[in-house]
Amino acid sequence: MSGRFITFEGPEGSGKSTQIRLLAETLEVQGIEVVCSREPGGTATGEAVRNILQHDAAGEPLSDRAELLLFTASRAQLMDQVILPTLEKGGWVLCDRFIDSTMAYQGFARGMDIDTLDAVNDFAIYGRKPDLTLLLDFDIELGFQRLAARYADGEATHDRFELEARDFHRRVRDGYHQLAEREPERFRIVDASGSVEEVASCVWDVVKEVLL
Amino acid sequence: MSGRFITFEGPEGSGKSTQIRLLAETLEVQGIEVVCSREPGGTATGEAVRNILQHDAAGEPLSDRAELLLFTASRAQLMDQVILPTLEKGGWVLCDRFIDSTMAYQGFARGMDIDTLDAVNDFAIYGRKPDLTLLLDFDIELGFQRLAARYADGEATHDRFELEARDFHRRVRDGYHQLAEREPERFRIVDASGSVEEVASCVWDVVKEVLL
Repeated sequence: MSGRFITFEGPEGSGKSTQIRLLAETLEVQGIEVVCSREPGGTATGEAVRNILQHDAAGEPLSDRAELLLFTASRAQLMDQVILPTLEKGGWVLCDRFIDSTMAYQGFARGMDIDTLDAVNDFAIYGRKPDLTLLLDFDIELGFQRLAARYADGEATHDRFELEARDFHRRVRDGYHQLAEREPERFRIVDASGSVEEVASCVWDVVKEVLL
Repeated sequence: MSGRFITFEGPEGSGKSTQIRLLAETLEVQGIEVVCSREPGGTATGEAVRNILQHDAAGEPLSDRAELLLFTASRAQLMDQVILPTLEKGGWVLCDRFIDSTMAYQGFARGMDIDTLDAVNDFAIYGRKPDLTLLLDFDIELGFQRLAARYADGEATHDRFELEARDFHRRVRDGYHQLAEREPERFRIVDASGSVEEVASCVWDVVKEVLL
């Protein structure tokens, strides 16, 4: 008995957390045990790391290497404490961001060495890659409009990544597409520009096709 | 103009922090600018990481891999924010624990793969190893007696590492000796079983011989 491991990737504002919640509800109706998590975070240690990453402890700039190692520390703890034990019990794990966020953001967008990131990622995940990675993809300008609406509602607050320039987010998107081309078996690109219900329907179709 | 980078290693209770303070005072009398630091910690980010490492966030067990990545995240930040800038200005850095603590504790004592630890360490320190590493060495039983006295005085509190078994600390000491044999140019073993003044005198003799 072994569970399934699905990660959701995509730029800010692509609707990952909403789609994870909807997919979890659909899977639970099928009688599947589902654990939802997120990165960085998902464990007490990971949430403490998330706090360091998002608030630049004491305002000092975080070095690229320290940032990478903090993200992967959170990942290793999540793997060991949540993901591997859930999969061993036959449960499904849905995770909001995972190894590909490191590759897209620190690698393709910030220019850190891709082979080094691959090696650090492999170490942190004990060699267990996701069974399926859903890339929620859409035009960058649409994402900024959605974020602006969330800020206006007071729902979201700016963090480091959201404050980065639009050019950076374009490099992230291009990076995600390169990752999807590199591992076509694991990746599925889902058009995230439609309504919440339309995207959820696409996500469910892919999950049924690939994993059920 | 380039400074000097000295690290102090050794088991718990070997007197590293006292010896660092005394060496810093001696160097400052010589007109040398000295920055003292410690690991994990030494930066705002590193101190936040230290807090996670020493208190097992929310009581959950920390995976070996997450622990390693947290230590090296603190190290990368210290390198980028403190050590490299100080050395570039011609200052000296004295650091309480560094790469060899990872090798001795996570590697030789806990059994993590030595080559992996080497690779992660090299990444975190941007390839800049210490110019001199002073291993404060002494019989393990003496260390436990010193620790017991500090607890009795209320000066120190138990943390994870101090609670590990004596057998573990013996493996740490053996590991340190293997590291010293591996890099005899960088390492100097100082007998730390004498009085504070005797050890300080030995430390100063070594520093004069190797770096002045």
